[in-house]
Amino acid sequence: MTGILPSYLQGEWWTPDASAEGSVLENAADVRDASTGELVTRVSTDGIDLAGAIDYARTVGQASLGKLTFHQRAVLLKQMAVVLTERKAELYAISARTGATERDSWVDVDGGIGVLFTYSSKGRRELPNGQVLVDGPAEVLSKDGSFLGQHIYTRLPGVAVQINAFNFPVWGSLEKFAPAFLAGVPSIVKPATPTGYLAEAFVRILVESGLLPDGSLQLVSGSLPGLFDHLRLGDLVAFTGSASTAERLRSHDAVQTGGVRFTSETDSINASILGPDATPDTPEFDAYVKQLVVEMTAKAGQKCTAIRRVIVPEASADAVVDAVRARLAERVVVGDPRAEGVTMGPLASVAQRDDVLAQVRKLEAAGGALVIGSTDLPAVRLADGSEGQAADGAFLTPMLLRFADASADAVHEVEAFGPVASVLSYSTLAEASDLVARGGGSLVTSVATHDPAVAIELASRIAAYNGRVLFLDRDDARTSTGHGSPVPHLVHGGPGRAGGGEELGGIRAVKHFMQRTAVQGSPELLTALTGVWHTGASARPYDLSGDVHPFRKSLAELRVGDQVASPSRTVTLDDIETFANFTGDTFYAHMDEEAATANPFFPGRVAHGYLLVSWAAGLFVDAAPGPVLANSGLENLKFVTPVSPGDSIRVELTAKQITPRETDEYGEVRWDAVLKNQHDELVASYDVLTLVAKERVPAAV
Amino acid sequence: MTGILPSYLQGEWWTPDASAEGSVLENAADVRDASTGELVTRVSTDGIDLAGAIDYARTVGQASLGKLTFHQRAVLLKQMAVVLTERKAELYAISARTGATERDSWVDVDGGIGVLFTYSSKGRRELPNGQVLVDGPAEVLSKDGSFLGQHIYTRLPGVAVQINAFNFPVWGSLEKFAPAFLAGVPSIVKPATPTGYLAEAFVRILVESGLLPDGSLQLVSGSLPGLFDHLRLGDLVAFTGSASTAERLRSHDAVQTGGVRFTSETDSINASILGPDATPDTPEFDAYVKQLVVEMTAKAGQKCTAIRRVIVPEASADAVVDAVRARLAERVVVGDPRAEGVTMGPLASVAQRDDVLAQVRKLEAAGGALVIGSTDLPAVRLADGSEGQAADGAFLTPMLLRFADASADAVHEVEAFGPVASVLSYSTLAEASDLVARGGGSLVTSVATHDPAVAIELASRIAAYNGRVLFLDRDDARTSTGHGSPVPHLVHGGPGRAGGGEELGGIRAVKHFMQRTAVQGSPELLTALTGVWHTGASARPYDLSGDVHPFRKSLAELRVGDQVASPSRTVTLDDIETFANFTGDTFYAHMDEEAATANPFFPGRVAHGYLLVSWAAGLFVDAAPGPVLANSGLENLKFVTPVSPGDSIRVELTAKQITPRETDEYGEVRWDAVLKNQHDELVASYDVLTLVAKERVPAAV
Repeated sequence: MTGILPSYLQGEWWTPDASAEGSVLENAADVRDASTGELVTRVSTDGIDLAGAIDYARTVGQASLGKLTFHQRAVLLKQMAVVLTERKAELYAISARTGATERDSWVDVDGGIGVLFTYSSKGRRELPNGQVLVDGPAEVLSKDGSFLGQHIYTRLPGVAVQINAFNFPVWGSLEKFAPAFLAGVPSIVKPATPTGYLAEAFVRILVESGLLPDGSLQLVSGSLPGLFDHLRLGDLVAFTGSASTAERLRSHDAVQTGGVRFTSETDSINASILGPDATPDTPEFDAYVKQLVVEMTAKAGQKCTAIRRVIVPEASADAVVDAVRARLAERVVVGDPRAEGVTMGPLASVAQRDDVLAQVRKLEAAGGALVIGSTDLPAVRLADGSEGQAADGAFLTPMLLRFADASADAVHEVEAFGPVASVLSYSTLAEASDLVARGGGSLVTSVATHDPAVAIELASRIAAYNGRVLFLDRDDARTSTGHGSPVPHLVHGGPGRAGGGEELGGIRAVKHFMQRTAVQGSPELLTALTGVWHTGASARPYDLSGDVHPFRKSLAELRVGDQVASPSRTVTLDDIETFANFTGDTFYAHMDEEAATANPFFPGRVAHGYLLVSWAAGLFVDAAPGPVLANSGLENLKFVTPVSPGDSIRVELTAKQITPRETDEYGEVRWDAVLKNQHDELVASYDVLTLVAKERVPAAV
Repeated sequence: MTGILPSYLQGEWWTPDASAEGSVLENAADVRDASTGELVTRVSTDGIDLAGAIDYARTVGQASLGKLTFHQRAVLLKQMAVVLTERKAELYAISARTGATERDSWVDVDGGIGVLFTYSSKGRRELPNGQVLVDGPAEVLSKDGSFLGQHIYTRLPGVAVQINAFNFPVWGSLEKFAPAFLAGVPSIVKPATPTGYLAEAFVRILVESGLLPDGSLQLVSGSLPGLFDHLRLGDLVAFTGSASTAERLRSHDAVQTGGVRFTSETDSINASILGPDATPDTPEFDAYVKQLVVEMTAKAGQKCTAIRRVIVPEASADAVVDAVRARLAERVVVGDPRAEGVTMGPLASVAQRDDVLAQVRKLEAAGGALVIGSTDLPAVRLADGSEGQAADGAFLTPMLLRFADASADAVHEVEAFGPVASVLSYSTLAEASDLVARGGGSLVTSVATHDPAVAIELASRIAAYNGRVLFLDRDDARTSTGHGSPVPHLVHGGPGRAGGGEELGGIRAVKHFMQRTAVQGSPELLTALTGVWHTGASARPYDLSGDVHPFRKSLAELRVGDQVASPSRTVTLDDIETFANFTGDTFYAHMDEEAATANPFFPGRVAHGYLLVSWAAGLFVDAAPGPVLANSGLENLKFVTPVSPGDSIRVELTAKQITPRETDEYGEVRWDAVLKNQHDELVASYDVLTLVAKERVPAAV
């Protein structure tokens, strides 16, 4: 007899105590192989201590993640990705039992691992190596600069409960876990029952790796009894699944008035528009049809991003149907994913299959004519390579319906979560856009067009109804990641029917697990809070009489506020001409007194901005070998007051932010650079970026 | 008999037809002068065509705002601010009837006008002069760069219904209207009944100014019958008021499942912590007490941001109460705002007054002892300067309660929305933080401390429970804008009990009226959609044989994609030494072959980064007078590949974004600059910012 699928709770693997109560195993849900109907495992959380798990996350999980910086968490994500990569063959074997073809498993397993890699990389490139994320520039709120405002993000103080859909047990879990982990918020992952055994497998690999900080990841293999009664302000529930379940969860008091964040990503009635220019002889038409066939068959159409509404010009509708039919016949073999040559597997379960058939019948009743495929259960390629009926397998053929009346409600509301799409036709772009909007909010709409005017008009009309819009044309058809594929760099989620939430989108997702707070205070205080030096805070100017020049301090020695306040240097007309001749920059503002005077911004000939920043470097640099390894960049340079011959300039260079790299022997130092003239007027301001060694490099190297 | 307060609907002033139905005036709500009880106006929307107003916003309002760019809308906001400033004496006179003192009116009227000025200024400085807002950098999604992702914001396609609280009828309306208007979304403003006549007055001024684009602003003076039945995806409701009303509105299907955005800002039980270092002999103690007295008395305590919980060290509790008592006695005169010397007016209505008294009694019942003030109706200064009881005026004295048991539920849950606060004491920072969290989410907490360690610990514990945290100390006490004052630059709103919404925060608020969408496509297509040139899109290199150099094109002539592709220039060791000697930048990587070779990033001596960008300017510049007026800045400079003696560099400078200024004869052009070496390797990339004349300047100037 197959046992109960374990959960991972409070640092230990747990299963219901089957011996204590006879009912446990009786009430457990059976989970079966999608192709063969064979029993894979059983799922129950009878007797689970959910309150204990939540408390463990809030205490142990928060504490262990709270010891790490963003970069340290990011490094762990990469190490997890590596471990999963090493053992992904195990995951692929298990994935096949869920009905996933090799390609489906690649999307799920490699896609999930890819999310970890991307968040690791973005975490280190785009977040500070600390725990507070600064949002936007400081706002000066008093004339004298003594009172500032700054937005910061700090992590939510609770737990992130992640309720996932059955279709992508690995990717779906990791795309929520990675940003929560990076934010420093512990996760409780709840996979869907039909494929939870695959989620259990990857969690087991992560647990065995020893990489998970205590309490940072718990797994509930089964239901979450009374979940919301245990949650409070500071907790978050991220849900992926059906719109109706999202509605039910969202309506709980804990969400409505208790301050628990609830974000949902629900299947939506996504659309794909064939542009009027993309007639059957164009590359865009071919790309459109190829993409449609992929979206109908990948994961047997069980994707919340799949194309459900095929919106095409009236004149091209027949051609689209014919082309899809031909391509399906040529490319698609339905069967057990373990059989050679199979390109479309079964649905996740017989229950899912039956649900899809019921929805197809609703679409038919609403006027949809089945022009490709059938609701009969198909003969398929079995595991041994033979063709036949698989009575206990959840197989369907790809189905395309056609609606004569594009305005029928059902086609915009009913979702058959399988290999099913419906063709609608339009005559104007406004009409096509209205059809998109009829979906009530979608995860994604794709548009095949090579006409920028079509793209601009459609974007202005449909963007607000979509979380993502993909434009397909001859230039990107080959490299496009596809209508149905969320990428970790871009937001996944959409308004209205799509759930109203946002996931992924790079660091945007990390912020969803944090609270944005406006902090007001003196420059000194904001510097202390954020670790970023704010103009007006105290600085420690390097003193020629004996101090160590900040460039001679290693990353370990340097402190925010360490400063070089340079002597002045006077600019002469000769300097300007020398620089102009050397660089070739003989712009009239530097070379022609009369023309320069006529310019609205200059009093006469002025020094080149590039001369000023070059001289500034000469004024602040410490030339001998030392910890400062390179000037890697410069940001936000603004020229404010022009510098005329006879003016002099000086520079204040202040260590603003110090970012050690976890896996290198150096890190980045951002310096605040301010150039002033002899009247103390601001000439220019900018940030200088340098790479600095963690240890002081011996002078002789 | 006083008539019905008009609404402004579908471009016309409207009142219920009193003659048609006898019941209209009978059912209308009476609105009375807060100090005298005199009838000011009556409010009813009996027979309003709300569906018509909403449709007018969605059609006429969307169309008229859709013709304008962000900058054009921003210019209108400034013009509105100027018109309101010119006529603000009228508004002050009306405001006094609501119970507002001169200072209260300044917060409301000048504060509201200030929001318009700030959004006008930020709109022009921080938004493009177009209609699509790009969010973050493009993400390269294919190895060859032919497939990109870019997040954009486009306006919501519907209407923004703004339901405001009674306490700040001008500011409260304008802080929602300004960002909606800037986003391009039409507003329907619904003020609260007790002070709606002041909102009507400022709307009337705006209507009379002729500045409002058709349908961009409608006013409903009274209730919104069946509002949510008329709303759908693409619409937004922004609510300010009580938590219970927010809960009721939020629960509507249109919000829960229909995709209508609902954002709320509700009164919360805000806290103010006196740091353990801020003992009675410190400037922080004085600042704390002064701020508390302001928050108790300004607007008679009717501020959703007011301090309700006074969280102080046990040892300082008596001293705080004594100091508050002394300062109230010295500074606060309760009375009719039209009387000389009055510093605290009545509450907005007798109903409000009675509600506050009821809440105070709840606090008393829960263990709060009234240590300052009384629930008796006070003698006050009347309009004629005499002292006496004002039977029909909504006056109260400031009241301070003290709780021996800081953990009493009521003090963290019951809000007396008037001049009332409660003192709680703590012994550790963890305890003080837990008390803050007990409020279930607040708009703002302030902390008086001059100890960075205290600030850091408290921030890490309380930030996530607050929309704003203000740190008060000797450095900013004089310039602080105060605990209770939202500023347009910073987010206003907070988690949980505070409503869970965000308003203001500069351009952040504009985005709340827009949809973020991830757009995928080729560089060419994303360039067309966003108006911003994307790397990989086609460019038009300037051809020496006869084309016009891009620097010779006015803003009207220049197009995104216009390019200078320069010839190459070879760097010699002599060049490097010349530059080093001229600038003083003799960093060893440029001057010392052995030391440079030992550096992990350099093959040997290399050219200065500043030399390279200076030469690049020499390579792309067109020297003669022309439309390009100045180089105003440089952004995102990254040095990628070092340049050694013998290497040569060339530059591609491509017009990336063109931003004409609405009120100047020039605008900003952002150029994409790419430096490559003789092997076509990327040497450096950056953006050059220039100011360019709208018209071509004659060569002779």
